[in-house]
Amino acid sequence: MILTLGGLAFLSFAPWVAAVVVLLLVVVVASYRQLIKAYPNGGGDYEVASKNLGEKAGLVVASALLVDYVMTVVVSVASGVDNIISALPGLAPFRVELAVIFVILLAAVNLRGVAESSKAFALPTYLFIGSVLLMIVVGLGRVALGDAPVAESAGFDVQAHNLAQTAFILLLLRSFASGCSALTGVEAIANGVPAFKRPKIKNAQITLTLMGAIAITLFVGLTALALFSKVHYAENPCDLIGWAECATEPQRSLIAQIAAATFGNNSLMFFVLQGATAMVLLLAANTAFNGFPLLGSVLARDSYAPKSLSTRGDRLIYSNGVVLLALAAIVIIVVYQANLTVLIQLYIIGVFVSFTIGQTGMVKHWLTLLKTDPPNRGSIIRSLSINGFGALLTGVVLIVVTITKFTHGAWLVFLMMPILFMLMLGVNRYYRDVAKEVEVDPITTFGSQGDHAIVLVGKMQKPVLKALDYAIAARHVSLEAVHVSIDEEETENLIIDWAKQNIQVPLNIVASPYRDISWPLICYIKDRREEYGSEVVTVYTPIYIVGHWWESLLHNHKARRLRQKLMLVHGVTIALVPWLLDSSELIYGRRSRPIPGQERRGEPVRSHPIPRKPLEPVAVDTTSVTVSQAPTGPKSSPASPPMKPRARPVNPNRRKRK
Amino acid sequence: MILTLGGLAFLSFAPWVAAVVVLLLVVVVASYRQLIKAYPNGGGDYEVASKNLGEKAGLVVASALLVDYVMTVVVSVASGVDNIISALPGLAPFRVELAVIFVILLAAVNLRGVAESSKAFALPTYLFIGSVLLMIVVGLGRVALGDAPVAESAGFDVQAHNLAQTAFILLLLRSFASGCSALTGVEAIANGVPAFKRPKIKNAQITLTLMGAIAITLFVGLTALALFSKVHYAENPCDLIGWAECATEPQRSLIAQIAAATFGNNSLMFFVLQGATAMVLLLAANTAFNGFPLLGSVLARDSYAPKSLSTRGDRLIYSNGVVLLALAAIVIIVVYQANLTVLIQLYIIGVFVSFTIGQTGMVKHWLTLLKTDPPNRGSIIRSLSINGFGALLTGVVLIVVTITKFTHGAWLVFLMMPILFMLMLGVNRYYRDVAKEVEVDPITTFGSQGDHAIVLVGKMQKPVLKALDYAIAARHVSLEAVHVSIDEEETENLIIDWAKQNIQVPLNIVASPYRDISWPLICYIKDRREEYGSEVVTVYTPIYIVGHWWESLLHNHKARRLRQKLMLVHGVTIALVPWLLDSSELIYGRRSRPIPGQERRGEPVRSHPIPRKPLEPVAVDTTSVTVSQAPTGPKSSPASPPMKPRARPVNPNRRKRK
Repeated sequence: MILTLGGLAFLSFAPWVAAVVVLLLVVVVASYRQLIKAYPNGGGDYEVASKNLGEKAGLVVASALLVDYVMTVVVSVASGVDNIISALPGLAPFRVELAVIFVILLAAVNLRGVAESSKAFALPTYLFIGSVLLMIVVGLGRVALGDAPVAESAGFDVQAHNLAQTAFILLLLRSFASGCSALTGVEAIANGVPAFKRPKIKNAQITLTLMGAIAITLFVGLTALALFSKVHYAENPCDLIGWAECATEPQRSLIAQIAAATFGNNSLMFFVLQGATAMVLLLAANTAFNGFPLLGSVLARDSYAPKSLSTRGDRLIYSNGVVLLALAAIVIIVVYQANLTVLIQLYIIGVFVSFTIGQTGMVKHWLTLLKTDPPNRGSIIRSLSINGFGALLTGVVLIVVTITKFTHGAWLVFLMMPILFMLMLGVNRYYRDVAKEVEVDPITTFGSQGDHAIVLVGKMQKPVLKALDYAIAARHVSLEAVHVSIDEEETENLIIDWAKQNIQVPLNIVASPYRDISWPLICYIKDRREEYGSEVVTVYTPIYIVGHWWESLLHNHKARRLRQKLMLVHGVTIALVPWLLDSSELIYGRRSRPIPGQERRGEPVRSHPIPRKPLEPVAVDTTSVTVSQAPTGPKSSPASPPMKPRARPVNPNRRKRK
Repeated sequence: MILTLGGLAFLSFAPWVAAVVVLLLVVVVASYRQLIKAYPNGGGDYEVASKNLGEKAGLVVASALLVDYVMTVVVSVASGVDNIISALPGLAPFRVELAVIFVILLAAVNLRGVAESSKAFALPTYLFIGSVLLMIVVGLGRVALGDAPVAESAGFDVQAHNLAQTAFILLLLRSFASGCSALTGVEAIANGVPAFKRPKIKNAQITLTLMGAIAITLFVGLTALALFSKVHYAENPCDLIGWAECATEPQRSLIAQIAAATFGNNSLMFFVLQGATAMVLLLAANTAFNGFPLLGSVLARDSYAPKSLSTRGDRLIYSNGVVLLALAAIVIIVVYQANLTVLIQLYIIGVFVSFTIGQTGMVKHWLTLLKTDPPNRGSIIRSLSINGFGALLTGVVLIVVTITKFTHGAWLVFLMMPILFMLMLGVNRYYRDVAKEVEVDPITTFGSQGDHAIVLVGKMQKPVLKALDYAIAARHVSLEAVHVSIDEEETENLIIDWAKQNIQVPLNIVASPYRDISWPLICYIKDRREEYGSEVVTVYTPIYIVGHWWESLLHNHKARRLRQKLMLVHGVTIALVPWLLDSSELIYGRRSRPIPGQERRGEPVRSHPIPRKPLEPVAVDTTSVTVSQAPTGPKSSPASPPMKPRARPVNPNRRKRK
């Protein structure tokens, strides 16, 4: 496509450009065989660069790879969607939506787990390799028999642009730079060594070589077939002279045209090949879904990224990395409207930055080894020369790629990379400062004394009773229940209930004239600390455990805010007493956990109230309730020591359940 | 605009349509004076409907109002931006971006606080009323003097559509329905009664009447001026016969054309008026920013919306409601690309649903009062007839508005309303079920016994020491420190540090073969509970308090996940021991809170380490460290009772700081 910008005559350069790409691929594969052997821990170029060339070089590689992983997803998905549209043109209006859906699907599959995803991805890959090989054999066979397939666009001439000498060279370089896309994925194997079966290094090297061989075969075969079948593909469809529907119909992808010419348009094999191509392109995005979270976790381990990226989910997936990658890819797809011609320009620059720095790191690695003067000098010098040549070649390609792509939109990559670099450096410095801040030093001393507990009481409900029960069990030196009164009627009801339940813990009422809970409570605690000295105050609050994500929108909101404010008060520690709602049965497999103490006392419990004799009315005794007109009001009476919980009539009908 | 769809001749109906709108406005204002007197608590139509007609009617009103508040923001902002573009046509390409920015600005102002926002909003309102009144006086004066202003579009004829009899009536109704936009805002005063100065009811009624009078004056004056100056405004700009630039230039808003005709194009007063109009339209959105969060909080109070909507922020704002409204408005603006012609169709339907049901509720209210046969029968019958007429009229208008707007996009409103209705009902039922679930019943008994504390230790850092210190101060019956070992080297370092620090609490190591923290810990606790009976286990974990929102991305992630899992274990309560990082100084005004015990013992503290004699090396004593091969390994030795914290050499150089 790039070459035809200069007219059809330029297509004669195609075999030479292809040859250089193949040479490059061979060199890079050879270089990476060295890297796998030297650094088998899966750190890939990042590890090589940071170990041999220092932190900054490592971060440049990391930022380049992060950008490129995102671009891999974007480009693969966008071109997969392009191939689907080539086969089913009716879907053309939904290209962006389709691309976004595929990214979400990929993320979902990857969140399900690696093992499942690998299996799901093997079949289409084999199908693709098999059908493209078949196409190449059939196509070249027909060429040999003199019945060369003719592409549908063979008859269209291409609008030639007048080119100066320099522009001509630039065009050659641009076509070469585009061809270099064939090299992506090589670094993925170097990053994935730990995932191989033993012997890991050997298997990874074999896989790498196999991958190189397959890539070269397909690349050379397709290029040859494209030239024989005279496929003409233009950056701007209306540059195809003779094609009337250029403005209204999508230009079919190259591989679709070749397949149609070889197997017949809309034949079974055409659809098989298009389907396999689309699937493989979508799955190519999966390389990034493996690589990005892994690199993220390595960066998190080294404190260059938030620690949350190194947290594995229940299925051992770095789920935050997967989600982050999907989000970034979706943003770019939407902003660029899944336009492949622009997106492809942002692609592979990161890979070549990573190639070049990684290979340079390997050169340093071998040089260092040489200095220690080991016995196997010869093999080191051989490795050194392979990696040296690799570094040189990929460096040159990086310059070519940068020059040819920069003005076509690649500046964005060079904008994103320093931003990511600075972010990662900033995160690292932040973690370092915090680690210094919390380091044990001989000046900070500990030795708190005094033990007081407060149970926050809102309404008289079971979670509050449980919190109270736990607070009593913890045998604090002093214990009180505190209710912040924002509604007089509710407060009165609570006082009556408190007495009815015959709870032997004093209930103190803190008045809140402005319907705010936290401030009066903070004042109450501070006042207490002023009077009793700076003891440790444990504040018990119930917390609801829910079964669905949306339930958390409906619970714990006020309690969370209150806790956040209380945690700023000196000497306060917050005790969370969990209360599992029925809905949590769905995820945790039980209706509700037994109330503490039930099992021990051997009291069976039934989950639903049963008809029973009404409790005899209890005389309301409010003597144990103290009302303070806090925040600045008189102090509450000192709390009494914890009492035994009241005895309860035992119902003989109860059944044991767990 | 609507009338000109039938040709310019139809404009002669404009005064009649305007007259009906004015009549309606008078009736609605009179009706709402009654409502304010009867329900002065600010619940407005929602309160009236739910009290008199039941829950479902109240929810219909609530969902109608919620939708309409969002549409008020969208329409006001979109038409404000339209007026800005009328004055500064260069901004035309950025209409969507401008609208979104204004919504964000409005939300930001409202999050800052009501008092500030009211002041900021008064000036433009007065400026608008003043300059429009001036324009009406000047314009009508010129008409009286025989020098009537002539609008720039006066010369353009309008493409007439051929209309059948029924279509003609529909057109009249549509123009009336559009005119009814003048009535929005009336219900806002009824909702805002509690915010007025005393005597609240009187002042609210006066304001309502004043607002009605001003609205009628401006509405009648502008309609008259529009007719005199022969402004021609078409739904489709290219229906204006004779205007060549219809496809490329934006049609100037009606008020801009009148202002240009009256004061001269691009005169100072033209810009003042355009500026004031744009500002008032943007501020009209503010009605919704007051009303929506208030209604949300009332719904939350009645358990129809998440409780978080009734949480006031530090500035007494229902901030979640403000954010929710802004988000909903932005989504609609982006989806409809701020296209006023479409958006206006979604507007005012909600208001008339609310008017009709509210007035019907008032009728029921007066009927109920009548039955109790009070002395002031006469005044009740008068009120009843006012509200009855109001209900009838607004009901008819609702039907008209629905018929004329439904096919133009208003179906969306009728889709959203039932969804909101069902959501609110669902939330209510959910809260009701949970309340039932946690209700104190005589079957569930409490009475936990046994008290054990575990301090989770990762690295030897100050936050961990503080957690340990608090746990010791709380005098638990038994106390142990537990470290989950996922890295052997780190574990060994910890054991050495533990001994070096001479901590008298036993440190138990739990092995974790799969680098997972929570599962081995859960097994450890469960094993302990099996051996020692089901005591209450308090798990102490440090929690970082940070100063910036982004820092929370970098902290507490693993600890939060661990807590969530531990809270599912029987008998576990989580004690959060806060550690304020230096960065929290920014918001809480202090570098770090003094370490507990410092003040008490009168030990001065300095924040940075000072050069001091190195501590004498302490002999490492690992006898107190027990290593268990958990999760299924042998049990750890029973924890020893809490020890006094170790004595520390006191540094005489320390300074007191707080």
